[in-house]
Amino acid sequence: MAATLHVCITCRAGQTIVEGEPTPGARLRDAILEVGVPPDVNLVPIECLSACSQGCSVALSAPGRWSYVYGRLSEANAKDVVAGAAAYAAAPDGLVPWRARPDIFRKQSLARIPPINLLPEAAE
Amino acid sequence: MAATLHVCITCRAGQTIVEGEPTPGARLRDAILEVGVPPDVNLVPIECLSACSQGCSVALSAPGRWSYVYGRLSEANAKDVVAGAAAYAAAPDGLVPWRARPDIFRKQSLARIPPINLLPEAAE
Repeated sequence: MAATLHVCITCRAGQTIVEGEPTPGARLRDAILEVGVPPDVNLVPIECLSACSQGCSVALSAPGRWSYVYGRLSEANAKDVVAGAAAYAAAPDGLVPWRARPDIFRKQSLARIPPINLLPEAAE
Repeated sequence: MAATLHVCITCRAGQTIVEGEPTPGARLRDAILEVGVPPDVNLVPIECLSACSQGCSVALSAPGRWSYVYGRLSEANAKDVVAGAAAYAAAPDGLVPWRARPDIFRKQSLARIPPINLLPEAAE
C-alpha cells in the first residue's frame, strides 16, 4: 500500500542556521531524495511536525494503519529512513516486525498513533 | 466532527508500579472519565503510544485532520485534556487557535502528523 513519508523541512535541530543556508530538515529531505524514494512511498515535505526539541523528525502514515513519528535524525540517517519507509509500505498491515526495522526506528520513536477506526476492544 | 482521544493506559511514566496497582496511564484515563468525555469525543484506551520516555501521553485524531500527540501528562491534567479534546472536536477543521488551547497542549506537544491526503504543495 502507498505510504506517506512526511519530512519536517523547517527543523533546525537546535542549531543556529546562517540565512540562506539549508536547515538540517531540508538537508535530510535532500539526502532522502538522493538515496531515492521507493515507488510506493510519497515524500511530503512539511513545515513543522511539532517535535522541535527532538528534530529532525519524520512521520510515516497510510490509510487504516498506525502512524509513526521518529526523531533525533540527520541527513546521515537518510538511507535508513528510506529502508524503514519501504518496509512499512511493503508490510501488508504496516506492522513491520521489530527485527526488520532499522535501528533508528527501534530507538528513536517519538510516538505512534493508532488508525482512527481501531475499535476500543481491539486496542486494549 | 467526532474526534478520537487515544490514552496510553499502560504508561508507567518512569515510575515503579506495585503489582495490582493502576499505572499512571490508567489513572489518567480514569480521571478523564471522571471529568467526563464530551459527546463528540471517543475515548479509546491504547497499550503504548511509543512515547514512553515522555509519558503519560494521549493522541487526538479525526478523519482528514492533523493528529496530535501530547506527553508528560498526569491525572492532574485530566480536565485540560478534556477541554483540549472538546476544542479539537468542535473546531471546523480541527485547527484550534493557539490561544484557545490548554497550556499543556501548547507546551507538551510531542508531535503532530498531517492528514494523509494533504497535497505536497499545500504542506510546504
